[in-house]
This record gives sequence, structure tokens and C-alpha cells, in this order.
Amino acid sequence: MKDHVYKLIELTGTSSSSVEDAVGKAIQRAHKTIKNLSWFQVVETRGNIEKGQVHRWQVTIKVGFTVEG
Amino acid sequence: MKDHVYKLIELTGTSSSSVEDAVGKAIQRAHKTIKNLSWFQVVETRGNIEKGQVHRWQVTIKVGFTVEG
Amino acid sequence: MKDHVYKLIELTGTSSSSVEDAVGKAIQRAHKTIKNLSWFQVVETRGNIEKGQVHRWQVTIKVGFTVEG
Amino acid sequence: MKDHVYKLIELTGTSSSSVEDAVGKAIQRAHKTIKNLSWFQVVETRGNIEKGQVHRWQVTIKVGFTVEG
Amino acid sequence: MKDHVYKLIELTGTSSSSVEDAVGKAIQRAHKTIKNLSWFQVVETRGNIEKGQVHRWQVTIKVGFTVEG
Amino acid sequence: MKDHVYKLIELTGTSSSSVEDAVGKAIQRAHKTIKNLSWFQVVETRGNIEKGQVHRWQVTIKVGFTVEG
Amino acid sequence: MKDHVYKLIELTGTSSSSVEDAVGKAIQRAHKTIKNLSWFQVVETRGNIEKGQVHRWQVTIKVGFTVEG
Amino acid sequence: MKDHVYKLIELTGTSSSSVEDAVGKAIQRAHKTIKNLSWFQVVETRGNIEKGQVHRWQVTIKVGFTVEG
Amino acid sequence: MKDHVYKLIELTGTSSSSVEDAVGKAIQRAHKTIKNLSWFQVVETRGNIEKGQVHRWQVTIKVGFTVEG
Amino acid sequence: MKDHVYKLIELTGTSSSSVEDAVGKAIQRAHKTIKNLSWFQVVETRGNIEKGQVHRWQVTIKVGFTVEG
Amino acid sequence: MKDHVYKLIELTGTSSSSVEDAVGKAIQRAHKTIKNLSWFQVVETRGNIEKGQVHRWQVTIKVGFTVEG
Amino acid sequence: MKDHVYKLIELTGTSSSSVEDAVGKAIQRAHKTIKNLSWFQVVETRGNIEKGQVHRWQVTIKVGFTVEG
Repeated sequence: MKDHVYKLIELTGTSSSSVEDAVGKAIQRAHKTIKNLSWFQVVETRGNIEKGQVHRWQVTIKVGFTVEG
Repeated sequence: MKDHVYKLIELTGTSSSSVEDAVGKAIQRAHKTIKNLSWFQVVETRGNIEKGQVHRWQVTIKVGFTVEG
Repeated sequence: MKDHVYKLIELTGTSSSSVEDAVGKAIQRAHKTIKNLSWFQVVETRGNIEKGQVHRWQVTIKVGFTVEG
Repeated sequence: MKDHVYKLIELTGTSSSSVEDAVGKAIQRAHKTIKNLSWFQVVETRGNIEKGQVHRWQVTIKVGFTVEG
Repeated sequence: MKDHVYKLIELTGTSSSSVEDAVGKAIQRAHKTIKNLSWFQVVETRGNIEKGQVHRWQVTIKVGFTVEG
Repeated sequence: MKDHVYKLIELTGTSSSSVEDAVGKAIQRAHKTIKNLSWFQVVETRGNIEKGQVHRWQVTIKVGFTVEG
Repeated sequence: MKDHVYKLIELTGTSSSSVEDAVGKAIQRAHKTIKNLSWFQVVETRGNIEKGQVHRWQVTIKVGFTVEG
Repeated sequence: MKDHVYKLIELTGTSSSSVEDAVGKAIQRAHKTIKNLSWFQVVETRGNIEKGQVHRWQVTIKVGFTVEG
Repeated sequence: MKDHVYKLIELTGTSSSSVEDAVGKAIQRAHKTIKNLSWFQVVETRGNIEKGQVHRWQVTIKVGFTVEG
Repeated sequence: MKDHVYKLIELTGTSSSSVEDAVGKAIQRAHKTIKNLSWFQVVETRGNIEKGQVHRWQVTIKVGFTVEG
Repeated sequence: MKDHVYKLIELTGTSSSSVEDAVGKAIQRAHKTIKNLSWFQVVETRGNIEKGQVHRWQVTIKVGFTVEG
Repeated sequence: MKDHVYKLIELTGTSSSSVEDAVGKAIQRAHKTIKNLSWFQVVETRGNIEKGQVHRWQVTIKVGFTVEG
């Protein structure tokens, strides 16, 4: 088995509904251009507020994927 | 455009259902006395346990708002 | 009232649906052998990805419980 | 049982005798205006020195209390 | 000499020109209502960008002041 | 001389009197079942408050001991 | 309003004059290829020294921008 | 596929030769009683010195393994 | 001398033999597409385990290189 | 008033009785050769254990003092 | 080329005007007794306040230099 | 037995071959002037790159030793 090398990129996903949805949105977007996404870790959870309610969750993640070749 | 100054306060919201609900509860309560809440960031996620189940999520956040004047 | 001593153990719960479910799974499992679980704190939130979607949330928590005697 | 919201404030207590006394001083002072203080956590322990001796312990704590209403 | 107690509050000052100006703005604003501000420490330095230039520095500080009585 | 392996466990000791007493209580309790405790490090110092006074210090430590065999 | 996804990249700007200039240089360079830069946060401030003077400030920042599509 | 729960334990391995050997020693020892060790992460690297040479590397790791049942 | 701007990317190198080899593998792979790699810093050291032995070291590094132009 | 420059050194004081005594011992020792010690901050609190009791507190501090001339 | 060894010392520079000036003051002072200062990194930025204005910036840095011989 | 006081100094060792060799080089150099070096801890691992290979490991450590008298 080969010694793989992975690259990690940092993304912020946003969602009006939940932490899980914000992470999912970031991963779905990355998947459009990078097919072999492998794992993620949450770096920070923030959000903005409007009229006393969470308007949008902003979850920053690192996403790792295998570098080919 | 003016150079605003913001104040940050730290709150712990609690909820028996979810992280999102605990954060929402803290923000709703702060909104009763501070109208211009602008953003938040999650500082810590804890909880207490009863009978092998999460009884209450305790999520500590910093909330920022514009200082008038 | 007695000065209690508590022990903390570290667990990673996994779930295909949510952070809350992953934490709940870890606590339910620990409860099988330790009856007086008292509180938890989230240490890290990660996950693995398959086909551009979160396949499994992996949430690491510390769980505290009273040491008897 | 209700989902409480807590506020955390940050204080530095000082004492010429001990860490415990510095924390106690900060809590006693806060108690004059806030009756339902619930818990604290130590953030930082510092002090100033005079003539080769600790002159004053300076212990910074976060104090949490229930927000009514 | 008395054992003082200090309170710390967290503020974000903003400025289009510099880190120092953003901190100064936050302290000047706080001084309007709290006369005995004593020291500060920088917690975070951020900013927003417009047209490839820093539009506004956002510097978050903790400010400490003596609690009277 | 052999290359030892050590295990670290995490405990929270509590005491109404001092940080030192809380740590001592945790170590005494662990000593009941583990005889070769070797060192500790303080992870966190917290406490709960009643009537404007520290009611109980809660000091979390990691304790290391030699794994036999 | 759409749920945006942002990407964060990490850059080190350098300048012989100031922290602000080093950050500005990094952002101007990034702006050549990425038009919608939105915010930054300072990660680390270092520098090299020649003849007892700061020769070059090296400020590492994370820069966030909207991912189109 | 089932939602596994993992436990993490903390160990310090020691070796007079290298970081890798110290980690290997800790894992080999743990493997004597726990068969399904799955991953580790390095927490801290220390050592003691004798006569101006590293006498023993002390590497603290967290080791994760599946909790059966 | 010009004020350079550097970019930092994050990579995880893997190796069955050592930390140094895992770092070397990540840098060699990056060098295939980026010729002016300048420095690195270790962010995290992890690994997976098989049959009570380290099967593969996973070392995450940040790598910096000059941005041309 | 002049712009002072301060130097910080790191010391570990030890004591069989308390955290305060360990800090005091370190400062007294430093005072033998450096007369203008000004402030300290606690970096880490550890200790060794003998027969289920804290044998010696080991408190690491940074101590700051004015650099003359 | 030889494998150099570097020493790092920690200094706090102060200035009534700016962060850059405070760092410069600390480095100039160190340069009086240590000629081969090579690099620095900012550890902490604080200051004291008088009459609602920053009175003195206090910037703590680590400074590295080659150890001869 | 006496309550010892220890001093910690920070050094960066460099080596073209390994982490262990870089640490060893720093300790050997310190041993030339300080005979009672007792322990070390790794603070940071970095390095510079030439032609797609690690050219020199740079490992920063804190080294502790007993202060006599």
C-alpha cells in the first residue's frame, strides 16, 4: 500500500438552519471540483443575528483529500 | 461611514434538544434588553447527563453588538 | 456534604445524522457500564466524507462521573 | 424545568495572601450587586512583586449567574 | 493598601487606518461611561476587505477597570 | 534501566477549603486502587458559589502512573 | 438570500515599515487573482532583524472569499 | 454499517533512542490488554537529560479503540 | 529588496517508517507542482495502528512558498 | 517618563506545602541576583506524588523585570 | 554549512506611540549586549490606559539569536 | 530534601537529518556552559526546504536545570 499525501483546505459553510447543514453545504460545494474528499474537522462555529434570532450559521471546517500522483 | 465600536458579552444557553436551540435561547434572552445584537461565536459546548442521556445542552457563546453613541 | 471525586473519560461517538446523535450514542454506550455519568464537554468535532456528503459525524467528548467510595 | 440562560462576567480579584483569597474577594464583591452567582473558572493567575516577595496575587476568573426572566 | 477587584469587558474597535487607532477608538468609547479604565490586552485582530484593500481593522480587546466600593 | 510506559487518567477533586486540598483528595482517592501514582498536572480550576462565597473548589488534574509488565 | 460558501487561504505579507503595510501587501497580491476577497484575520506576527532593527515584518493572515457557483 | 463508539486513553511511552520508538513502546504495551487499537495522536514530547544528552524521550499520546458491544 | 508575499498550504504526509519520512513525502509531492517551497512547520502528528504497531505515521504540516509577481 | 524594556525569565519553584509557597520560593531565589523583579504569571502547575500524597508542588512562572540602561 | 543552535529570550518593549515602536525599543535594547539578533515573534500585545487613552503599548516578543561556538 | 528552584531556557536546535538530532544538538550546546541540565520539552517543530527536500530541521525546546544556591 502506497504512502498517500493529503491536502487540507479551509472552508466556511453557511446555513439558516443548523451546524450540520452549514458543514454539508461547504462539503457539497467543494465536491463540485474535488472528487476525493475524505474527512473534515470543525475549526470554528459562528453566526450572524437578525432580530434576536440566528440568521445564518457560519461553520469553518478543514477538509482533507488525497493528492493524486 | 463611521468607525463603530462593538461590545461582546458571554452567555450560556441551555436546551434539552440541541446545540442550535441552546444558542437560540441565549440570543432570544439577550435580545429582550439589547436590540442590536449582531453576531456570535461558540466558545464551549458542554452538558449534563441524567440516566445515560443528555439532559441539557449548555452552549457558551460570545455575542457582539454595536455600542451606540 | 462530602467532597466528591470525579473521573473523566474520553469517548468518540459517531452518527450519520447529527452532532447531538453522535454525543448521545457515546453517552448511551458508557452508561451500559457506568451508571452515574454526570456531565460532558465536547473536545473535537470531525467526520468522514463519502461522495461529497458527511458520511459519519465523529464527536469526541469528555464524560465525568462520581467515583464511589 | 425551564431552560435557563446564564451570563458570564470576567473579574480579577487581588490578595496579598493566596490564590483562594483573591478569588474569594472577587466573588464577594460581585455578590454585592448580583445575588445568584452560580459558578466560576480560573482564567489566569498573575501577581506583582516587591522586594523579592509576592506583593499581591491577581487571579482572573469568569463568574456565571442565571439571567432572570 | 486595599485589595482591589477589577472587571474586564470585551470590546471590538474599528478603524480604517490602523490597529492602534482601532484600539484607541474602543477605549475612548468605553471611557464615556467608565472613568477608571486601567489596562487592556489584544484578543484578536481581524478586518474586512473592499477592492483588494483593508477597509476596516477590527481589533478585539479586553479592558480592565477597578470596581469601586 | 527499562523503558517504562505510563498511563494518565483525568480526575476532578473537590474541596471547600483550597486548591491544594482538592488536588490531594483526588490523589488520595486514586491511590486506593492504583498504588504507583507518580506525578500530576493541573488541567483546570473551577468551583461553585453559594451565597457569595466559594462553596467548593473543583480542580481537574491528570495523574500519571507506571503501567506494570 | 443564498447560503454562501467561503474559502480561506493563508498568506504571509512582509513589509519593512509596519504590521498594517505587511497585511495590505498580502491582500493586494491576492486581489490580483481573486476579486471577491471579503475578510481577514491575523494568525501570527513575526519578523527578521538586522543590525538591531526590525528589517522586515512578517504577518500571517487568513483571507476569506466567496466561492462562486 | 453500525455507529461505533471509541474510547481514548492517554499513555506516555519512553525510549532512549527516538520519538518513534517511544510511541511504539506505548502502543505495544497497550496492545497486551486491548486488541483493537485503531489510531493515536501525539499530545506532548518531552524528555530527561543526563550528561548533556537526551537520556530518555517521553512522548505522550492519545490512543483510540473501538468499544465493543 | 522586494517585500515578498508567501502562501501557506496544509498537507498531511504519511509513512510507515518515521515522522521525518512522512514530512519528506508531503514536501516531495508538493514540489512536483510548486518549485519554490521555502519552509514548513509541523501542525499535528497522528497515525493509525494495526496489530499493536504503528502502521502509518500521519504528519500534518504547513508549507510556505513565495508567490511570484 | 521613559519607555522601559522588560525581560521575562521562566522558573519552576517547588514546595511540599502549597502553590503559593512554590511561587514564593522561585521569586526569592531570583531576587538573589536580580533586584528589580516586577511581576509574574503562572504558566503551569504540576507536582510529583509519593505514597498517594502530593510530595512536591512544581509551579512554573514567568517573571518580568526592568532591563536597566 | 554548520548546524546552528539559537537561543530565544522574551522581552516586553513599551512605547506611547505604536506596536511597531514598542517592538523596536525592545530589539534596540537587546542589541546593546547581543549583536547577532536574528528574528522575533510577537507573543502578546497589552497596554495601560490613562484618561481614556492608551498611555503605553506593552508588546511582548521572543527574540532569537545564534549561539556562538 | 530541599525545595529546588529550576530555570527554563528556550533553544532552537537544527539538523539536516532528524528531529532527535536537532534536539540533541541544542542540548549538547547548552551543556557546554550549564552542567546540570535536567529535562526538556518540545515547543515547536519547523524547518526550511531546498529543492523539494527538508534542508534543515529546526526544533525549539525548553530546557530546565537546577538553579544552585
